[in-house]
Amino acid sequence: MLKLFYAPSTCSLATHIALIEAGADYSLVRLSFASDDQRKADYLAINPKARVPALVTEQGVLTETPALLAYVAQRFPAARLAPFDDPFALARVQAFNSYLCSTLHVAHAHRMRGYRWADEPEAIAAMRRKVPESVSGCFDAVERELSGPWVMGDAYTICDPYLFTLAQWLEADGVDPARFPRVLAHRRRCAERPAVQRALAEESGAG
Amino acid sequence: MLKLFYAPSTCSLATHIALIEAGADYSLVRLSFASDDQRKADYLAINPKARVPALVTEQGVLTETPALLAYVAQRFPAARLAPFDDPFALARVQAFNSYLCSTLHVAHAHRMRGYRWADEPEAIAAMRRKVPESVSGCFDAVERELSGPWVMGDAYTICDPYLFTLAQWLEADGVDPARFPRVLAHRRRCAERPAVQRALAEESGAG
Repeated sequence: MLKLFYAPSTCSLATHIALIEAGADYSLVRLSFASDDQRKADYLAINPKARVPALVTEQGVLTETPALLAYVAQRFPAARLAPFDDPFALARVQAFNSYLCSTLHVAHAHRMRGYRWADEPEAIAAMRRKVPESVSGCFDAVERELSGPWVMGDAYTICDPYLFTLAQWLEADGVDPARFPRVLAHRRRCAERPAVQRALAEESGAG
Repeated sequence: MLKLFYAPSTCSLATHIALIEAGADYSLVRLSFASDDQRKADYLAINPKARVPALVTEQGVLTETPALLAYVAQRFPAARLAPFDDPFALARVQAFNSYLCSTLHVAHAHRMRGYRWADEPEAIAAMRRKVPESVSGCFDAVERELSGPWVMGDAYTICDPYLFTLAQWLEADGVDPARFPRVLAHRRRCAERPAVQRALAEESGAG
């Protein structure tokens, strides 16, 4: 059975949703960032990078959301969560998720994790001030790419739970969601899926 | 034929090397970041994100290094640049590359591109000061993972040209390479490969 180490309100939600969409047999282990669980010895033995998500498989531990999402899609092909038989289509899926990970999530991270990139409180505050603008710029790029009901068009893929997860943070990042009507419609569409509702319930402790 | 838009001394080198390793038929288009080519209208029509690399394929444009590397590996399977038949092994490859893209390259980017995340010159200078420490922290994680001659062990994969490319920047980022003997040995090993030498020669204008 797969075991997902997650923390509420983080990007691990994307993998959690994908596991449910895939019909995977999984268990959850919750970390509390408030208690700094991710830096405790027992978790560092799982993931020395001190981040979530981490997925414990029968063959070992995997990390990094784009890799986990593709793994879930490839391991449970019946769910058709990624077009593994089409190199170009798969690359589009991966490019979208890589952008979310390396650009959009990174822009967002400057609100709460500025200490990763500067020491001075003034610099960290300066980063925080720019988050609404830099995150909005990323969502401009996403908004431009959306046309169908799902990120890749008519097919629901591993791009969708990832975008849904990061779009949870719009308001807290000081971004006006009304600027991004397609992203908002996508967020609502995802929120109606049973897998998303189950993942959110499990993470809230109600599941 | 594939067409790669690249800029010298950027991460596009990784895809360039992979194309050669794969035996792909490709052409190159050089952008000058000094001339801001990446923000000119004709390039924005190719890649509205104003970044390199971009790969023009028969089916359309692809971007984002981890996606391009996996695309090259999947499209040219004879070169065996990624284990597409093994979901766990492929996820390890993708996790490594995703970490390089979203964490190591991002740490590096705070030296020259701090304006993405803050406006004040003092904050941008503060980011620059922390680069040796933050980039070193990323290379600590990489050093810990290296054991074989190549990133994934005995098999040369799409992780190797990507790590080689980012390890080009160690000295300029103010990192002491002697702290990372495995990374250095890997860099030397890569530099001996004909594909790497050809890519560097092509990018220097000597190819």
